[in-house]
Amino acid sequence: MAERVRHFEEELDQLKVRLLEMGGLSEDRVQTAVQSLVTRDLSMVARVLGGDGPINQLHIEIDNRCFTLLALHQPMAVDLRAIVSAVKINTDLERVGDLAINIAEAATRYLKHPPVKELIDIPRMATIAQAMLRDSLDAFVRRDIAMAEAVLDEDDALDALKTQVFRELLTYMLSDPSKIEPALDLILISRHLERIGDHATNIAEDVIFMVTARDVRHHAGDADRTPPSPDRA
Amino acid sequence: MAERVRHFEEELDQLKVRLLEMGGLSEDRVQTAVQSLVTRDLSMVARVLGGDGPINQLHIEIDNRCFTLLALHQPMAVDLRAIVSAVKINTDLERVGDLAINIAEAATRYLKHPPVKELIDIPRMATIAQAMLRDSLDAFVRRDIAMAEAVLDEDDALDALKTQVFRELLTYMLSDPSKIEPALDLILISRHLERIGDHATNIAEDVIFMVTARDVRHHAGDADRTPPSPDRA
Repeated sequence: MAERVRHFEEELDQLKVRLLEMGGLSEDRVQTAVQSLVTRDLSMVARVLGGDGPINQLHIEIDNRCFTLLALHQPMAVDLRAIVSAVKINTDLERVGDLAINIAEAATRYLKHPPVKELIDIPRMATIAQAMLRDSLDAFVRRDIAMAEAVLDEDDALDALKTQVFRELLTYMLSDPSKIEPALDLILISRHLERIGDHATNIAEDVIFMVTARDVRHHAGDADRTPPSPDRA
Repeated sequence: MAERVRHFEEELDQLKVRLLEMGGLSEDRVQTAVQSLVTRDLSMVARVLGGDGPINQLHIEIDNRCFTLLALHQPMAVDLRAIVSAVKINTDLERVGDLAINIAEAATRYLKHPPVKELIDIPRMATIAQAMLRDSLDAFVRRDIAMAEAVLDEDDALDALKTQVFRELLTYMLSDPSKIEPALDLILISRHLERIGDHATNIAEDVIFMVTARDVRHHAGDADRTPPSPDRA
């Protein structure tokens, strides 16, 4: 039995390592996509567009690990929640990888035009979104609620920047029709970055649920009703 | 033991009923959001903006049901995959509800301007996205692979419409600066509808995996390598 527990713990650690690896890959891809936009480097854009193989393979591998852990070890309580969270987090990270591709596609179109403006807020959004991703995954691995809650707070900064980017680019579009098309792509890119922040937020919410069995989505935790939980951590 | 199995089956049926209910709610909200845009009905928009309570509550309830089923019944094979799929599908449907809000928010801004054009393709996109959602959920309940595969095919129609909407609205923006702002919101709405189709696609892929233990994401099923699976259906 002790052997069985040890084996489970080892497998769970392996799963965490793989999720961090997946997080690192998806974060890298976002960074490369935005950097290629800022430096106007089309070969870098191409690298993002063609480079989703490793992340897709890891996505499938992590899912399989989760199913194996559920089927062979039938975990309970916090371990059960950790593995179901891992399935969800895996999905979120894969979508982040897809969003890097969306950014690269918009960058491809954008780079056909002269620059609309110097890009400041978009790289800033990327930095925040990447930090949120990193922190949410660290919070998962360490089961650190305070860290997860900090991620939820960071999302407001990202939303404010998105609104600012939108307003500024709208001004450019209104004053010069030749900027409409490229400015549109910058707006779409800012939306993609906002969604990356949303995925980090999802991960942070999963971490809080995993650790506390308390559901903070939809402010469920604010109400005096406690959601029924099948077990206790 | 037979009693235990019967109880599990009943609980699983209840879970399916709740997921269909969740699907119905999210589909309704998308329909109402797009209809309010087309009929320029601000009170209808307000209904979408304020009406996410029931869907959020159901989201939490379904997640709890899944955890209870996993913890108490420790299902294997196709049943295990069904419940993990239900967790994922639940997340997808909740996001669809959020996208209905995003559509309503864009509609609120859009309706402050005179109409850019008669809306034809956007309602068409909504109809396709809703049908995809409905079919993907029916495929889940019936464990019907052919139906799930049909959903994957429908996604191309949605993508084509999105591109068409984008091109057409760009023309309007270039020819008349007063249309830039409202046309932008229509473009964002078409993107939200595209993402609803993406969620239906995710659900359909989960159904295929649930039934066959074959992973069709990232064309994994196309390769000659079979992903390792912890069990057989």
